[in-house]
Amino acid sequence: MVRRTGRRPGNPDTREVILTAAREAFAEKGFDGASIRAIATGAGVDPALVHHYFGTKDKLFLAAMNSPLDPLDVLDEATAGGRDEMGARVVRAFLRIWDGPRGAAGVALLRSAVGTEWTTRLFREFVLTQVLRRAVPKLGLDPGEGGLRMTLAGSQLVGLAMARYVIKVEPLASASPDAIVAAMGPTVQRYLVDDLPGVFPGLQPGDDAGDH
Amino acid sequence: MVRRTGRRPGNPDTREVILTAAREAFAEKGFDGASIRAIATGAGVDPALVHHYFGTKDKLFLAAMNSPLDPLDVLDEATAGGRDEMGARVVRAFLRIWDGPRGAAGVALLRSAVGTEWTTRLFREFVLTQVLRRAVPKLGLDPGEGGLRMTLAGSQLVGLAMARYVIKVEPLASASPDAIVAAMGPTVQRYLVDDLPGVFPGLQPGDDAGDH
Repeated sequence: MVRRTGRRPGNPDTREVILTAAREAFAEKGFDGASIRAIATGAGVDPALVHHYFGTKDKLFLAAMNSPLDPLDVLDEATAGGRDEMGARVVRAFLRIWDGPRGAAGVALLRSAVGTEWTTRLFREFVLTQVLRRAVPKLGLDPGEGGLRMTLAGSQLVGLAMARYVIKVEPLASASPDAIVAAMGPTVQRYLVDDLPGVFPGLQPGDDAGDH
Repeated sequence: MVRRTGRRPGNPDTREVILTAAREAFAEKGFDGASIRAIATGAGVDPALVHHYFGTKDKLFLAAMNSPLDPLDVLDEATAGGRDEMGARVVRAFLRIWDGPRGAAGVALLRSAVGTEWTTRLFREFVLTQVLRRAVPKLGLDPGEGGLRMTLAGSQLVGLAMARYVIKVEPLASASPDAIVAAMGPTVQRYLVDDLPGVFPGLQPGDDAGDH
């Protein structure tokens, strides 16, 4: 089972009813459009109870997704030592979570992400609001470049999770964390931090190619 | 619908019966253990009919997976110009397929790859026998390094497919192919061709760190 941090779980039925209402609201209206008040109404409970059980709307969304972690915690660790070697620290933190007891929840999250159109939409909203939106300022990325840099890095990490933990293809599935950090750290570093010639010129607003 | 190359489809019922028997055999016995003869017996047809409809066992497996392409065709294109810029050519060929009419079949293949344990096992067998085993010699990779190099590159490509075509997360989902090739070409080049310090030393048998 996933260990939850913070509050006591409370009545499990009430929790589940709120989480079900939250999943429906987030998938239908998006994170910003789904209010705690509307979710509480959908669950037939008082909004104060939603706050009591889950705290912020961010934390409610993480719980609704059964997320094995708050992505911001990984970023805290990754940014603790500045921008040098940030890529290696991101990959190492990612591996520590997925190789550990929370990895099973990560696999379940990825499976649900590709399960149906409905769960895919929910996962996309999760990535946009819980990862990208919060991470770009945290990592100190240029706002015009941060989204693409983050999704490039994210594509490598999702691919690592797919190959190593879902499909379990050898020899990557049993390669040592050190070897994977040595291989993928520079990739993530380059996507997040380094100059990327040929990538951003075509994406500048006002550029002739900017309407794609 | 996926356009199939080569032979006429024949009786669609017979084709489907053979493909169902093939999926079961490949998932249960693996590619090497599943004989055309046993698949024909499972389907209640003559082995000559399996050969007539599908040609080789490789092509039968590709058809059973509803693969949008033969991975070797991508590799032919990628290796046509030698090892320089091979990474960029791999990414460009990959994008051309997924951005084109066969992309929908690719998404379906990825969805099935993570759907159930059974389909995941089938997909893993597909990757091992139809991609890795055939590609390592074709790309001229060192046999001791080729498997990990290929799975590293594959993890980036699977992650690209997940982010751009399944989850469709922006801005990667609508980034231009040129920008993606500029970003990911050097990644794939490095995984496939360049020296990877810290990756292979730790994997040598007999090395002191080899027991990790």
